[in-house]
Amino acid sequence: MNYSEESLKLHSLLKGKIGIRNQMDVRTSEHLSLVYSPGVAAPCIEIAKDPEKVWEYTLKSNTVAIVSDGSAVLGLGNIGAEASIPVMEGKAMLFRQFGHINAFPICLNTQDVDEIVETVRRIAPVFGGINLEDIAAPRSFEVEERLQDLGIPVFHDDQHGTAIVVLGALINAAKLVGKPLEELSVVINGAGAAGVAIARLLRCIDNENNTACIPVKEIILCDSKGIISRDRDNLNSSKQATLGYTNPNNKSGSIKDAIVGADVFIGVSVGNILTADDIRTMAKDPIIFALANPTPEIMPEEAYKGGAAVVGTGRSDLPNQVNNVLGFPGIFRGALDARAKVISPKMKLAAAYAIADCVHPPTRDMIIPPALNEVVAYKVAKAVKEAALAEMGLPDEMTGYNG
Amino acid sequence: MNYSEESLKLHSLLKGKIGIRNQMDVRTSEHLSLVYSPGVAAPCIEIAKDPEKVWEYTLKSNTVAIVSDGSAVLGLGNIGAEASIPVMEGKAMLFRQFGHINAFPICLNTQDVDEIVETVRRIAPVFGGINLEDIAAPRSFEVEERLQDLGIPVFHDDQHGTAIVVLGALINAAKLVGKPLEELSVVINGAGAAGVAIARLLRCIDNENNTACIPVKEIILCDSKGIISRDRDNLNSSKQATLGYTNPNNKSGSIKDAIVGADVFIGVSVGNILTADDIRTMAKDPIIFALANPTPEIMPEEAYKGGAAVVGTGRSDLPNQVNNVLGFPGIFRGALDARAKVISPKMKLAAAYAIADCVHPPTRDMIIPPALNEVVAYKVAKAVKEAALAEMGLPDEMTGYNG
Repeated sequence: MNYSEESLKLHSLLKGKIGIRNQMDVRTSEHLSLVYSPGVAAPCIEIAKDPEKVWEYTLKSNTVAIVSDGSAVLGLGNIGAEASIPVMEGKAMLFRQFGHINAFPICLNTQDVDEIVETVRRIAPVFGGINLEDIAAPRSFEVEERLQDLGIPVFHDDQHGTAIVVLGALINAAKLVGKPLEELSVVINGAGAAGVAIARLLRCIDNENNTACIPVKEIILCDSKGIISRDRDNLNSSKQATLGYTNPNNKSGSIKDAIVGADVFIGVSVGNILTADDIRTMAKDPIIFALANPTPEIMPEEAYKGGAAVVGTGRSDLPNQVNNVLGFPGIFRGALDARAKVISPKMKLAAAYAIADCVHPPTRDMIIPPALNEVVAYKVAKAVKEAALAEMGLPDEMTGYNG
Repeated sequence: MNYSEESLKLHSLLKGKIGIRNQMDVRTSEHLSLVYSPGVAAPCIEIAKDPEKVWEYTLKSNTVAIVSDGSAVLGLGNIGAEASIPVMEGKAMLFRQFGHINAFPICLNTQDVDEIVETVRRIAPVFGGINLEDIAAPRSFEVEERLQDLGIPVFHDDQHGTAIVVLGALINAAKLVGKPLEELSVVINGAGAAGVAIARLLRCIDNENNTACIPVKEIILCDSKGIISRDRDNLNSSKQATLGYTNPNNKSGSIKDAIVGADVFIGVSVGNILTADDIRTMAKDPIIFALANPTPEIMPEEAYKGGAAVVGTGRSDLPNQVNNVLGFPGIFRGALDARAKVISPKMKLAAAYAIADCVHPPTRDMIIPPALNEVVAYKVAKAVKEAALAEMGLPDEMTGYNG
């Protein structure tokens, strides 16, 4: 199938992949009196008296904004707010289908950090959570960080969603090859939003006092110019900061130098950069996550030829698809159900283990559940909600599976 | 029925009167490839090349933001963004039910004119129209005015929606009593958003070169302190400006003085201010629109006792309910279908005549169609779309009845 051509036809036919649905009909004047004037005054008055009631009487408890400035959309780059809408609509569909969450695209006519932060604060009343999406690094880091006091979860999926699903896959891959996480030497190619977030999560950087968070032994991070080392003089502040928890032996060189002897390769940048011969230079039974889309860093067949023990990609037509859809619907579902104010490191870790736990036992062709498995979001939601409630010191009985 | 109590129960049960619906399921990896990665890149690329394509490939062509700052909600006043959400959700339901439009509540955490204007500009990419709602006057006037260059219709429904439906009702009421519009002497009680907009529309202020716009003979506008006259020294700039087209003989006094000899009374302020005796001081066969909610300025029974020829109220349990729902769904439907950049005076006039035209012939108990008549929006949409296309010099074939 020619996905481009068919997708254009489909988008033109639907003119909106999502729409608004009424939760009940408004056909009689009694309906109108209950959902609108005069009856609607009652919930308004209750919320005015007690702002917390907004969670009880409105869509807030089940609604997430997907906020983008269109600056880093798919692999297409800075295509702007309007051109990013189809992606955000697609994401909203996945929130609905797997998380039973109302997600609405907020595509912003600005790419200024202050203005993005300010705008999200102003539109926050209606939303129970904010999913930041396709905002270029390092701007995305700052936007997310400055919004952590908003009182509702603000979560940059390109960072944490990806990192969580990668960790879920890595837990099972490590199990499969019989290597403990804490002994793994990992190379990550790509030092943008995803690469940095994966490195932080795998090294337990935001989760240091959690005994359940097991840091991998060593990470080497590479960008388009090679290994990020203390000898580089062309590092932005975000890459500079990664040196605090990566590359302990200050290696330098290219990505090909980096993977020599490594246990794990994780690619989140450009495709077609490794060969079977490169894989042969890695440690025994290497784990390969070649996540560049649509062309992986190395095709699975080629990686297996080079001795890979297990290969994951971002592609739906290959086994072990490492896809964010395994994460965000359940993560937000759990956060909303617990009415969490942030998505904490413990919640992220719980999500990763829940994803890994969906596969018994992991095999070479299934270290991670299929992207469209509807049970995953439920299990992730349950784990995330439990983690959130435990952190807040609350019993696990807050709200139901609200859809 | 106790609407307050039942409405609270219903709101608590629904936790959101509206939700997001997917226009198709995402169950197979082929679906995922079409609506999300990799297929979704195709519409993104097309829109990046030609921004106008956003109307073809996204929800924009059928989506409206209902923007409020929560400063003038129902009769409850300045209750804030969160407490306004139930009203905006209710309005969104009516957009969906009658206009087949996706409307989403944007309740803002600011009541500053500059910030409201700026925020609407930033979130505009996803929307094909902006419905401003329950924003206090005179702030609402400025917000609306400053956003007219946005490229999509920005329409303050409390002003123009109300004025359009009132004119629709007045056209038929005048026909019923056999008085031409241009001979009517009209008194309006309430000089906020609705009162001023009604006065402007009835005097053809924004529509002066349109021969189809027939100004009523005279309008006297009253606020809580009585008739707005040149002798008052306590007028804000918005009220001051109305003197250019109201009160030509510079009358002064109370609302009771104002209605002596008048043909029409239109109340859009507080209830319970007139008696049968007051109605007896008006001209023969007076027309009474007592629109204060929930208590009208005078109950119909009392008004008829005083000699009223026809009475309308805002209440759903009485005949001749003058309700905005007769306007906005069809007005936006027509504007979206014509892809209008503004809702022009001609489009407003077309909407008013279309509403009037839904009743053949008008009778005392039906000068205006029932609020929940589903045909009204269709007729209004058709008239508004035709007016818009004619103004743009386009043939009437732009888009279909898009739902």
